[in-house]
Amino acid sequence: MALTELYLIRHGLAGTRQPAGDDERRPLTGAGVRRTRAVARQLVRAGLRFDRLVTSPVARARQTAVILRDCGLARAVEESDHLRPGGNLRRCLESLAEAEGRAALVGHEPDLSTWAERLVWNAVRHRLVLKKAGVIGLGFPGEGSPLGRCQLFLLVPPRLLV
Amino acid sequence: MALTELYLIRHGLAGTRQPAGDDERRPLTGAGVRRTRAVARQLVRAGLRFDRLVTSPVARARQTAVILRDCGLARAVEESDHLRPGGNLRRCLESLAEAEGRAALVGHEPDLSTWAERLVWNAVRHRLVLKKAGVIGLGFPGEGSPLGRCQLFLLVPPRLLV
Repeated sequence: MALTELYLIRHGLAGTRQPAGDDERRPLTGAGVRRTRAVARQLVRAGLRFDRLVTSPVARARQTAVILRDCGLARAVEESDHLRPGGNLRRCLESLAEAEGRAALVGHEPDLSTWAERLVWNAVRHRLVLKKAGVIGLGFPGEGSPLGRCQLFLLVPPRLLV
Repeated sequence: MALTELYLIRHGLAGTRQPAGDDERRPLTGAGVRRTRAVARQLVRAGLRFDRLVTSPVARARQTAVILRDCGLARAVEESDHLRPGGNLRRCLESLAEAEGRAALVGHEPDLSTWAERLVWNAVRHRLVLKKAGVIGLGFPGEGSPLGRCQLFLLVPPRLLV
């Protein structure tokens, strides 16, 4: 894997879950859209660009990824079922086997923060706090499995970026 | 300990070490001052305030802490020899035993990032990257030893804040 950096981005603030609602279709709220856009603009301002941008197909994640793309962080949005709630880190990594440079995954909690723990410490202790529209940044090892071998260089809630 | 949050802040960019120079007296560069001030202002804008602000007495750290205070993040700057390079986490925690709310420690690498690892995972694996003028934010447990029991909610390099 020639990935150098992996970003894990949680979807923005979405409407409340309805008892009989379809959880997959809940959109971002107006505040969720604005905050996600402000985060994206700050990442762009800092010079960040993603070579790959992959999202959970669930509406609130997909909408978040589209905002990131529209703000100039990536050229295209890909979807992956492995990023749905309760997704599969190993499959996500396999799908990035040919990726180079920086990739970003847009998805859900507690998946993303526990994936980060597995990548950095190869153990899950639920010690990372990833807010909605928050961003984790991981440095990848040059070769071999990234599990337990990544560096953590970024973990930021949106309120510090906007 | 009634601390709720502990921030670990690395000193800003300082001049290069001189072969015969006194390492304790190296000041921040002009760019180091500007970047540290920009970070401080963004933290203030996000609503952050420190109830205690303690710094290493080494010039580049002390100067960083004074900038944080002058920008409104804290009322006063305290100095502690336990924050010098190669300092002592346990002594720093002891000196905060009576602290409440949010405390910030300004110091050096690799001390601060390894302290964060001890506080969060009770193990040092050198997996956290803390840039100059970068900030780590830890959530403290309500009671008992914080070692291996803190949450990590913030790890940010200055380039994302300015």
